Amino acid sequence: MEAIANMKLTKLAIFGVGLIGGSLALALKQVGAVDEVVGVGRSHTNLEQALALGIIDRVALDVADAVRDADVVLLAVPVGQMATLMQAIAPHLAAHTIVTDAGSTKQDVLALMQTYLPVAQCVPAHPIAGAELSGATAARSALYQGKNLILTPLPQTNIAAVQTVREMWQLAGAKVSEMSAAEHDAIFATVSHLPHLLAYTLVDMIVQRENAAVLFGFAASGFRDFTRIAASSPEMWCDIALANKDALLMELSAYQDKLTQLHTALSQSDADTITQIFSRAQAARQAWQTKLV
Amino acid sequence: MEAIANMKLTKLAIFGVGLIGGSLALALKQVGAVDEVVGVGRSHTNLEQALALGIIDRVALDVADAVRDADVVLLAVPVGQMATLMQAIAPHLAAHTIVTDAGSTKQDVLALMQTYLPVAQCVPAHPIAGAELSGATAARSALYQGKNLILTPLPQTNIAAVQTVREMWQLAGAKVSEMSAAEHDAIFATVSHLPHLLAYTLVDMIVQRENAAVLFGFAASGFRDFTRIAASSPEMWCDIALANKDALLMELSAYQDKLTQLHTALSQSDADTITQIFSRAQAARQAWQTKLV
Repeated sequence: MEAIANMKLTKLAIFGVGLIGGSLALALKQVGAVDEVVGVGRSHTNLEQALALGIIDRVALDVADAVRDADVVLLAVPVGQMATLMQAIAPHLAAHTIVTDAGSTKQDVLALMQTYLPVAQCVPAHPIAGAELSGATAARSALYQGKNLILTPLPQTNIAAVQTVREMWQLAGAKVSEMSAAEHDAIFATVSHLPHLLAYTLVDMIVQRENAAVLFGFAASGFRDFTRIAASSPEMWCDIALANKDALLMELSAYQDKLTQLHTALSQSDADTITQIFSRAQAARQAWQTKLV
Repeated sequence: MEAIANMKLTKLAIFGVGLIGGSLALALKQVGAVDEVVGVGRSHTNLEQALALGIIDRVALDVADAVRDADVVLLAVPVGQMATLMQAIAPHLAAHTIVTDAGSTKQDVLALMQTYLPVAQCVPAHPIAGAELSGATAARSALYQGKNLILTPLPQTNIAAVQTVREMWQLAGAKVSEMSAAEHDAIFATVSHLPHLLAYTLVDMIVQRENAAVLFGFAASGFRDFTRIAASSPEMWCDIALANKDALLMELSAYQDKLTQLHTALSQSDADTITQIFSRAQAARQAWQTKLV
């Protein structure tokens, strides 16, 4: 366990004060690690709620006001808005200001940062704490307790900037790891993006059946859990799939190959092969669950 | 809502006093719908626990003693033991005794019943109330409250036998439906058996990677729910897959076709098609969840 310095931010600017940014603000305020949190967003109602809930201290007047002399600027907006937002903030960044994000894919954000921002001060980040809820009202200070957070800085990123973002997330309760953006995207293609694709595909297959109502009528708890992630935002997950297209296509192909093997085994009533696959998976899944608890 | 008659069983014999059979016994005892529950099983310890928990009133001395003059005989054993068990009970069945089961596939059980038992008295049944726990100690009287239960009798099955099994499950709290065994197996291939195959396959794909520990280390709540069913019994699910092979192969092929379409859309960065699939699935999944609650 590495020691956490007594880091304190004078000003944190959050673009997109939803579950992700709002929960970070609450966690930092709870441990007294930030003096002022300034919020920016497209929904006035959401910002008013964030203000009322004590998530932010004030709503920024404009982009320049938001980022002026901020220690850290957090871009917690959909990836589709990133390029425009980066272009808007770039002229107003102080030399010491660090820019970070909270997106689910990292190579795409890093590429945008390299295009629009002083990359030495940019620290891409991904907190692994998704939830189906959204908006400032969903924010809670404990969201990141014990959760993984991954940083994907470039070799030329300032070490001090990386350290500040690392400490910020540690103070919010997260376990911080560092890796390349490519490695990050490959890992999450496998354990997150592919399962989303598979769940969406199953539900869509059922929807298009003539007897869909009957099928849904008899679906039970196994189906409920397997397809929970298919209730996630279609826009966000289309963005993620496209942003991580290369890694995801590789994972999807690998999975299709495994299904073809299983199809062959089943068509040959090859109980040994089927039991071998199921047993290996069961043992691994049970071991994984045990470590979680 | 159909009226439930004041059915009362004098004797219920349960082969395999685990979660499924044990929970039925507890539910029926709670509403006073059975005088005597006799248990049979291969584990003496489990039967002693069932006795201590008041699930069964006594342990049968042998198969003949178990089924003698029983109103209903419930076969709640793995499908691999069914043929032997049916042959063992057949000589001891009274003319009025009804035989039912609780298996996840119905065409295979029905075929065995047709081979070994007087089919007019046989009522295949499937309670949709799986759980990862097993054994008598997992049994609870509320397990079937509001859960679906499907009967798949033949046209030549005695109507009175079907009605008795229907009322027995209604008294345990279940919503009872009736359909053909083939229709049942097709529905559950889609909403249950296929998802199990898909979850096992994903976990097994990850297990076999060199960086499996890293991948599992960053897997989070989406992965947890998606793969929960991959912690199910490999033997039981191999049996189910083989028993429902034809329907399951059809569903697997249909799913593989859908994945191929998605692979094409993603490789072409076809955001419209991807968003369409994800949106349709999300809307359906959210509507389904809403009806559940």
